[in-house]
Amino acid sequence: MKDHELRLRALGIDTRREHVIYMRRDCHVCRSEGFEAQARVAVNLGDQSIIATLNVVNSELLAIGEASLSTGAWRALGAAQGDRITVLHAPTLDSLSAMRSKIYGHRLDARAFNAIIGDVASGRYSDLHIAAFLSACAGGRMSLEETIDLTRAMVDVGDRIDWGGVTVADKHCVGGLPGNRTTPIVVAIVAAAGLIMPKTSSRAITSPAGTADVMETLTRVDLDVPAMRRVVDREGGCFVWGGAMPLSPADDVLIRVERPLDLDSDAQLVASVLSKKIAAGATHAVIDIPVGPTAKVRSEEDAHRLQNLLEQVAQANGLKLRVLRTRGSQPVGRGIGPALEAHDVLAVLRGAAAAPVDLRMRSLVLAGELLEFCGHSIPGKGRSEATRLLDSGIAWEKFQSICEAQGGMRVPGIAPIREPVITEHSGFVSDIDSRRLARVAKLVGAPGALTAGLQLHVKLGDSVQRGSPLFTLHAETTGELAYAKHYLATHPFVTLGEAVAT
Amino acid sequence: MKDHELRLRALGIDTRREHVIYMRRDCHVCRSEGFEAQARVAVNLGDQSIIATLNVVNSELLAIGEASLSTGAWRALGAAQGDRITVLHAPTLDSLSAMRSKIYGHRLDARAFNAIIGDVASGRYSDLHIAAFLSACAGGRMSLEETIDLTRAMVDVGDRIDWGGVTVADKHCVGGLPGNRTTPIVVAIVAAAGLIMPKTSSRAITSPAGTADVMETLTRVDLDVPAMRRVVDREGGCFVWGGAMPLSPADDVLIRVERPLDLDSDAQLVASVLSKKIAAGATHAVIDIPVGPTAKVRSEEDAHRLQNLLEQVAQANGLKLRVLRTRGSQPVGRGIGPALEAHDVLAVLRGAAAAPVDLRMRSLVLAGELLEFCGHSIPGKGRSEATRLLDSGIAWEKFQSICEAQGGMRVPGIAPIREPVITEHSGFVSDIDSRRLARVAKLVGAPGALTAGLQLHVKLGDSVQRGSPLFTLHAETTGELAYAKHYLATHPFVTLGEAVAT
Repeated sequence: MKDHELRLRALGIDTRREHVIYMRRDCHVCRSEGFEAQARVAVNLGDQSIIATLNVVNSELLAIGEASLSTGAWRALGAAQGDRITVLHAPTLDSLSAMRSKIYGHRLDARAFNAIIGDVASGRYSDLHIAAFLSACAGGRMSLEETIDLTRAMVDVGDRIDWGGVTVADKHCVGGLPGNRTTPIVVAIVAAAGLIMPKTSSRAITSPAGTADVMETLTRVDLDVPAMRRVVDREGGCFVWGGAMPLSPADDVLIRVERPLDLDSDAQLVASVLSKKIAAGATHAVIDIPVGPTAKVRSEEDAHRLQNLLEQVAQANGLKLRVLRTRGSQPVGRGIGPALEAHDVLAVLRGAAAAPVDLRMRSLVLAGELLEFCGHSIPGKGRSEATRLLDSGIAWEKFQSICEAQGGMRVPGIAPIREPVITEHSGFVSDIDSRRLARVAKLVGAPGALTAGLQLHVKLGDSVQRGSPLFTLHAETTGELAYAKHYLATHPFVTLGEAVAT
Repeated sequence: MKDHELRLRALGIDTRREHVIYMRRDCHVCRSEGFEAQARVAVNLGDQSIIATLNVVNSELLAIGEASLSTGAWRALGAAQGDRITVLHAPTLDSLSAMRSKIYGHRLDARAFNAIIGDVASGRYSDLHIAAFLSACAGGRMSLEETIDLTRAMVDVGDRIDWGGVTVADKHCVGGLPGNRTTPIVVAIVAAAGLIMPKTSSRAITSPAGTADVMETLTRVDLDVPAMRRVVDREGGCFVWGGAMPLSPADDVLIRVERPLDLDSDAQLVASVLSKKIAAGATHAVIDIPVGPTAKVRSEEDAHRLQNLLEQVAQANGLKLRVLRTRGSQPVGRGIGPALEAHDVLAVLRGAAAAPVDLRMRSLVLAGELLEFCGHSIPGKGRSEATRLLDSGIAWEKFQSICEAQGGMRVPGIAPIREPVITEHSGFVSDIDSRRLARVAKLVGAPGALTAGLQLHVKLGDSVQRGSPLFTLHAETTGELAYAKHYLATHPFVTLGEAVAT
């Protein structure tokens, strides 16, 4: 075997995020290179190369001359059992100096962000480095210039779709309101109006479901760019997971670390949202910022700051942007969780009698705004046009056609384990804590378990009687159900006020 | 097998820092609990419990009903092959809200720091969380109050040694000057003077060697508190690795993450240094802050800020502190790396003709200051007393006695691979970049490889002739030697100015 060569043997260990290489402590490469556990090393196979973190094996798990890779690293290298890899010290990353400079509170220029984002997108940063970078950029520590440069860097590191100069509509909700699943409905209406809306969505970051998670219960969402283009050319719109395409690829890496940190800062949020829109070729975007005490944005002041930042970064990048601030005092619709939210979306599109009115109204407001913003409707007439397209069934037909074009429409499942949570008091619903509710939905399995989550039976101001159900937990495993109930015992999210005497 | 039980099987994988548990994707616990890769789980064995990160196994590496642990987790639980463990969701950490609050730029109170540091010390934080916390506390984002609270929290989470009311001397150098290994010499002089100096030192964080790494080449340093007490009772001083004793245990966890981030902020530095001193029972401490363009502290302004912070936090914790700012324009002594620095220390103690004068002078200044500060010498007479104790051989005898009391004195090794680096020009040494030099010493293997590092043959202002050696690289492996030379090719650290015509 050559100097730095090792033979690959599959162990099938999934580390999810960070690539890991397994090497014997006494292997000739470890010894000659002086590698220790947690060293960052360059792993080369043919003309592929990745950076991985070393875990040292002190046993006969690997034979002399053998090494293994985590399943993600294995895939990234396109490895096969027995392949010969070479392992070297990872190159020194000059961008880490820039990262540290940011941690120490200095301003970074465009070159520094390009270097950092380039290394992040190529997987050269460990999770530790990414966590430190995210933390250093949070809490108002990014200037406007820096946010613009970060956004540009995130666009430039990936592909950019060109739709040939036509108006391209997009929308986004900054989140924080569980169940606020307007995107599939808005796309259906806007595409039904004849506009182009090639929507790419993300999976959940810190919420119980992202639009991509919800749409995955209804159709295929992991399309590549040519497949997406075919769908949009035919139907005008699509619902695609952005993570499957090389648009702002650093964003997906950053999000994988943001999730366990439960972190989502203004600058990262703006760079994440706008880089995806710009890379996807959008020309006109409407952004929904729900404001409420337990939404992601809690005060009008915060909303104002975020709106300003969004508008200025969009303008600097040539994207036309309109921001709508909406009320975010309680969850939207009934279901929370991928499949449960999909059922709500279908009810609105079908005009079902039981369709959640709030989800319908929010969708019509956003679709109406987009129709006006893109020049399809004259000012003041957008919402009535959107309502016509929805109530006539034209949007529902468009939705089904898009799903068919994406590979066929599916019926979302229902969780095998369902347990209603009953109130022991009577009264009026005075508060629903969206953060705790989201936590419960995640504990019960969403978004990993597609049918898990919860279904709300009450809204703010509702009168409830002792013994009536407030919500129903949906779970795929008994362990998750128990875990959510354990949390609920000390962290209720529905507050009841005094019952008015009758 | 009971509901959440799994049988342990050793795989011998060393992940170093973070505890990892390996479980089959299709095991009954993963399924019932809905665990996915990277989930944080609680692992219980008897009455021991740890938090670990889940790596999922998709192969026959583990049989149904089996699980494995990284070697660190295995040790922490005191596990044996075949032991039955139970695995549950990790409890929700309330302190993570406080951590996020800090990331978002808010001030934390004492309770919040106690909660965070308690969770850090117990291993309940993942490396990601620690990296984010460290980053959030860097760059001047900690107020004085916060730094005091963080320091107290770090003291309170561990043990505290009580020396019974006597004066207890301590010293510390904030680092950044490679080779500045004064501690072993100062301890020998101060203990020879009859004072109590129970010195605990750390291993290297971002430098090529810490005092504990250097002393490990000379004697045992992993003593526990009773063993240290026996040494100090007998000899007055000791050289012990602080990480082997439960003094400020969170500090050791934080340092493991600081190292790969190459991060060392003011507040963390002060809390780290002072919490160790306070927990070790020091009453009087002298702190050396070298200031220079490539030292850790680069300007008088930074030194002033750090000095203020050190003094105020010490005062708030009842520790008497004196700060000395020293020149930090170039490395101290000749050797850089654990064994190489030990050889320099021995030369000074023995009064060898070739002993580095700068290391000797710095040690005498610090020892003299401590002798005065602790009331042993009258003001102005400390340095001459220190010189007397050193030159008479009394300090050298004390040094040997302490090493004997710690388990015997060793002779530091010499690296098997040594390669001089020759200058191709003549001139005067106008600059030595300490940061690059430290990087080279680390690339060549220090501090992991005890004999690795480099030996400097020149000092600032020296005249060198073409073909003469500037320094010699010491390596334990050819891979590391090659890696250091590769870096040196583009990052020289010795700059030569114009040769003056003769």
